[in-house]
Amino acid sequence: MGDVDTAPDAASRAREADAPRNSLVARLGADRPLKLDAGVELAPFQIAYKTYGRLNAERSNAVLICHALTGDHHVASVNPVTGKPGWWETMIGPGKPIDIERYFIICPNVLGGCMGTSGPASTNPKTGQPWGLEFPVITIRDMVRAQAMLLDELKIDTLFAVAGGSMGGMQVLQWAASFPKRVFSALPIACATRHSAQNIAFHEVGRQAVMADPEWRHGRYFAEDASPRRGLAVARMGAHITYLSDAALHRKFGRKFQDRENPTFSFDADFEVESYLRHQGSSFVERFDANSYLYLTRAMDYFDLGADCDGVIANAFRGAETRFCVVSFTSDWLFPTSESRAIVHALNASGARVSFAEIVTDKGHDAFLLEEPELFAIVRGFLDGAAKARGLKNGK
Amino acid sequence: MGDVDTAPDAASRAREADAPRNSLVARLGADRPLKLDAGVELAPFQIAYKTYGRLNAERSNAVLICHALTGDHHVASVNPVTGKPGWWETMIGPGKPIDIERYFIICPNVLGGCMGTSGPASTNPKTGQPWGLEFPVITIRDMVRAQAMLLDELKIDTLFAVAGGSMGGMQVLQWAASFPKRVFSALPIACATRHSAQNIAFHEVGRQAVMADPEWRHGRYFAEDASPRRGLAVARMGAHITYLSDAALHRKFGRKFQDRENPTFSFDADFEVESYLRHQGSSFVERFDANSYLYLTRAMDYFDLGADCDGVIANAFRGAETRFCVVSFTSDWLFPTSESRAIVHALNASGARVSFAEIVTDKGHDAFLLEEPELFAIVRGFLDGAAKARGLKNGK
Repeated sequence: MGDVDTAPDAASRAREADAPRNSLVARLGADRPLKLDAGVELAPFQIAYKTYGRLNAERSNAVLICHALTGDHHVASVNPVTGKPGWWETMIGPGKPIDIERYFIICPNVLGGCMGTSGPASTNPKTGQPWGLEFPVITIRDMVRAQAMLLDELKIDTLFAVAGGSMGGMQVLQWAASFPKRVFSALPIACATRHSAQNIAFHEVGRQAVMADPEWRHGRYFAEDASPRRGLAVARMGAHITYLSDAALHRKFGRKFQDRENPTFSFDADFEVESYLRHQGSSFVERFDANSYLYLTRAMDYFDLGADCDGVIANAFRGAETRFCVVSFTSDWLFPTSESRAIVHALNASGARVSFAEIVTDKGHDAFLLEEPELFAIVRGFLDGAAKARGLKNGK
Repeated sequence: MGDVDTAPDAASRAREADAPRNSLVARLGADRPLKLDAGVELAPFQIAYKTYGRLNAERSNAVLICHALTGDHHVASVNPVTGKPGWWETMIGPGKPIDIERYFIICPNVLGGCMGTSGPASTNPKTGQPWGLEFPVITIRDMVRAQAMLLDELKIDTLFAVAGGSMGGMQVLQWAASFPKRVFSALPIACATRHSAQNIAFHEVGRQAVMADPEWRHGRYFAEDASPRRGLAVARMGAHITYLSDAALHRKFGRKFQDRENPTFSFDADFEVESYLRHQGSSFVERFDANSYLYLTRAMDYFDLGADCDGVIANAFRGAETRFCVVSFTSDWLFPTSESRAIVHALNASGARVSFAEIVTDKGHDAFLLEEPELFAIVRGFLDGAAKARGLKNGK
């Protein structure tokens, strides 16, 4: 993993956490602190976000996009850190399923993230030092509370839609549960109402990989000019396998050797799949903060909508008038279709309006980020229907 | 992972690798070196092994047990390192499915292992120092070649049966392919004819976790009185998840908290499943050598029976008179039933005699090591039938 050493230094990561490039920044909490599930208050704090399209005069066409664990707010434009296209440009843009000529898109970096919203990589205003592990442990509900404060700031009362996959889908569900009157329609994709034991287990391995790296320095690597690059790369490699599928890995790589005809009988990356994984690990550490990874995986682990209402998930959505479209993928073994069915059953039991689609694909959990024409058609169709019901005009 | 620090020191591990307790040791290769797939010769080398029961006068009742990645030869008696029962005592013993009153059981530690058979933790006779990464990279076929030399030493021409699960199952298949006339019956359990891309990927993450640990010292931790405990523990934690199943983890742990009512909002092991995994990691490093882990995972990755016969696996078994019993488990996602079916199809195409059983269980890959009455009944029945065909007398 030699190229791990090209990772940006702690100082440049800290700059992005405090003063994100190509981003809008809302400074919040000065008058009204963010009350966290951990029982502490966070104030002041900031949210970095991007918007695309225009808010209409009625302020009724806003679509909130919630990003996944390692995503960020650069959803439909070039990411200033990686130089790569936005992570959902296939979904969001002019004429795309989430059409920026029709809707006003808002995508915030999540609380606990490292791309401009307050998190462990940000400067603690009270000390002038990076928060590190002094940052309070946060939950999906805390992320959503912070986003609601952003919407207050933007004077947007009701979202036309909230959409997201994976951890983004968890936020979508939490939005509908916490603020049912502020969500006209909701698109939770490839997610669940609670993190499974197996998923907690995978996250714990990733966290242990980070914390086992002596360069982690108990979370104080910033202060000591260190960086747990190797631990974070291992965490990413392990997680990345769970985002794909056995079939997709077989189709893409099989047992093909990397730039050779025969095995080297060594511990080099003989197989293409090894080389691919090492690249996933080393490129990830160039753009992500190790402590953020701990905080965000922890937030996912803690997510359990049913726990807030005596285990009856339907009660979380009781009385909601939100229109739901739940989507899963056949080869997603991180958030299998059974989890999405549980969401649908709960929504049915609560009397909510819900459609459900299971998309046949071998691409695994990551399918929601990839070129999936059926997903695009479903999102477009669902939003079209919701737009009619909402009385939104067509386009421009 | 505080208790990782109680791991035995390098010196005591090295002693076990060279002078294993409660073991028989065969010193081989002095007259005839072991020719490895890597193109080098290994001589001298040693195999640590255990036997149970008595070899009959015809020398026709020998059963070879091949162990899995992290197993060893202490298959049916107390393990001198851990103090725990043998890993397959439910299967092997007096009156058990593999009955030591009827059969003569031989279980060797694999080549590359760390419990007495030559491997990276052993002393290189040429230097007087531990082999470390100077030990040649080995394959499943090399393991089987070494075992065949042990059988020559024991003057056993034909095995009544070869049995094993996971990496042990790979050895069983290789035995039938390499020495068809020496194998009367074969029991490959929960395995495959080649390691899949996803499995290679998981192994690579484990190896990277070990090699990312600065205490690994490029494999020279022995010489430097270091030990990559934390890296190896992370590798084990990740691997352990793959040995279980989503359903089993849900059943055993779900989202239960460990010794508390509510989350701590910290990175402690809040969930039982986290605590369990940490224990798996820390107890593993007390008994296993990190370099051995690299070598044995590599051997599994390289395993590809079809590659030796132009991709036609049936050709690997052509003309074999071995009787096969192939077993898989419904919830095993590391070696799913589809892999066992591929074995069966190849055996059918080669005209071999084969029976196949898929056992319904939620216990995942590790089911072959656990209390599975259906597995016991299948093994007992298969061996009974083979014993009749072989003309073995009943018991004692």
